[in-house]
Amino acid sequence: MNQKEIFQQIANYWSNDMPFNQLLGLKITQFDCHQSEIRFVWQDKLIGNPMQNILHGGVTASALDLAGGIVAAANIIDQLDDLSPESILNSLKKLGTIDLRTDFLRPGRGQEFIATAKIIRSGNKVAVARMELHNEKNDHIAFGTGTYMVG
Amino acid sequence: MNQKEIFQQIANYWSNDMPFNQLLGLKITQFDCHQSEIRFVWQDKLIGNPMQNILHGGVTASALDLAGGIVAAANIIDQLDDLSPESILNSLKKLGTIDLRTDFLRPGRGQEFIATAKIIRSGNKVAVARMELHNEKNDHIAFGTGTYMVG
Amino acid sequence: MNQKEIFQQIANYWSNDMPFNQLLGLKITQFDCHQSEIRFVWQDKLIGNPMQNILHGGVTASALDLAGGIVAAANIIDQLDDLSPESILNSLKKLGTIDLRTDFLRPGRGQEFIATAKIIRSGNKVAVARMELHNEKNDHIAFGTGTYMVG
Amino acid sequence: MNQKEIFQQIANYWSNDMPFNQLLGLKITQFDCHQSEIRFVWQDKLIGNPMQNILHGGVTASALDLAGGIVAAANIIDQLDDLSPESILNSLKKLGTIDLRTDFLRPGRGQEFIATAKIIRSGNKVAVARMELHNEKNDHIAFGTGTYMVG
Repeated sequence: MNQKEIFQQIANYWSNDMPFNQLLGLKITQFDCHQSEIRFVWQDKLIGNPMQNILHGGVTASALDLAGGIVAAANIIDQLDDLSPESILNSLKKLGTIDLRTDFLRPGRGQEFIATAKIIRSGNKVAVARMELHNEKNDHIAFGTGTYMVG
Repeated sequence: MNQKEIFQQIANYWSNDMPFNQLLGLKITQFDCHQSEIRFVWQDKLIGNPMQNILHGGVTASALDLAGGIVAAANIIDQLDDLSPESILNSLKKLGTIDLRTDFLRPGRGQEFIATAKIIRSGNKVAVARMELHNEKNDHIAFGTGTYMVG
Repeated sequence: MNQKEIFQQIANYWSNDMPFNQLLGLKITQFDCHQSEIRFVWQDKLIGNPMQNILHGGVTASALDLAGGIVAAANIIDQLDDLSPESILNSLKKLGTIDLRTDFLRPGRGQEFIATAKIIRSGNKVAVARMELHNEKNDHIAFGTGTYMVG
Repeated sequence: MNQKEIFQQIANYWSNDMPFNQLLGLKITQFDCHQSEIRFVWQDKLIGNPMQNILHGGVTASALDLAGGIVAAANIIDQLDDLSPESILNSLKKLGTIDLRTDFLRPGRGQEFIATAKIIRSGNKVAVARMELHNEKNDHIAFGTGTYMVG
């Protein structure tokens, strides 16, 4: 497998076999070493404020954390010499979120939501990503910053 | 209704009628103007890392955000002269998370999880809370800091 | 005075009469309701790590906080009907940093440093700004996010 | 030298030979692997708001960053087998702040200020510390959270 096929497999795995991502409907639609994109559609169960019908802040945080985590994962894989499944799985065990800041800008309203992440600091131990959440009308709903353990 | 009964009604409403809190099983077990406590039990659907069987970081963020939000809500209600349902509902519409920082300390393993929050800055416009997540063995899983709009 | 002249006066005041900004040599070179720019030159007294000759992290935080605070101040003034000095001074008394996050990306090396800020959330009570610090070679040294009380 | 003497030498060095710490008057009065204490006295040059005579937010951030950094440094040294000066200097080169969050609770007024830090996550790559700033009357002025590279 080349790197692109590996990334595709990981995207499928993380979208389909990670219980909480499935529960929220988070789909990894794109990722490489520099950026990632997560999409999910509105579902009533994601409501955090029934008076206002908006996303729970935890949904926003979950999507931003996944977007940042997946681009951090791409950075881990990009530094591997050995691209065997064992080597990849082993290296991904080191991945973990150290801290996450979410800035809520506007109420989470919309039919579809798009979380994007870009790496702003990459290293062999720690990576930092900046994330954004928009809806299908391109309303900017939230910013995020995540620090990830990668080695 | 006195303030204690009002807080009890809000706890029931937030635990039982907020779809995302129900989905995660978050229960408000205590709250007043100074502190709050949220409890939830392990469920496989909350898994964020199937290789390690640990909570998704977004579950942790959701529980911490709720714990901080409810103590911020108590501060809003505490400043009201009129404790009619209309007045309370109207004042709670102003509540919103401005920003949330989560520090992940240990993997989210356990059978039951307890999120607690304390107010560290209270005002008539903005409140800031510090939160912690522990499991039933008192392992310290995460810290949080949330800034809330309250007026 | 029109708004532009008022902003110029405030820039002069904040650059020349604020003791800590003077001590660090922070100069407000531009600001309006959307963005701001602060510049300062390398001085040995700003060193935080004599083995490496790089800026103290607190210098970076100070410059980012000023850049964010000044654009928050512009938002306060922009909402005033009465642009008399008394009204402006009175409204600026409400300005305060609620919280500030600094992400350090690269060592703070250079001859001149440029901090920029953009408003990402503006309201009549709270404003949120994102900041960046670069050196004269456009190396990206730090990111910041600040939440400010404005009303 | 035993560990205690080494810590004393580092405290002297960081207090007396780090130009920005000297400029602000930051003195390391205590530190070990678990906690640290920094003290500094009021000086007019630390003023960030001449209308209110309070500390610049950057002074607060600087003191909190130093308090967290020194306890992270103690963790680095505690993991060394070789306590020669070369080994210690070499290991401290890895120390760096990844991110710092400051929560401002009250105006920075007082005659003396005390910053304290405690380690909340320690590892061989990354350490996380929580910090507090009080004045001589024990008024709580600020909270901080810092993530540090240690390996």
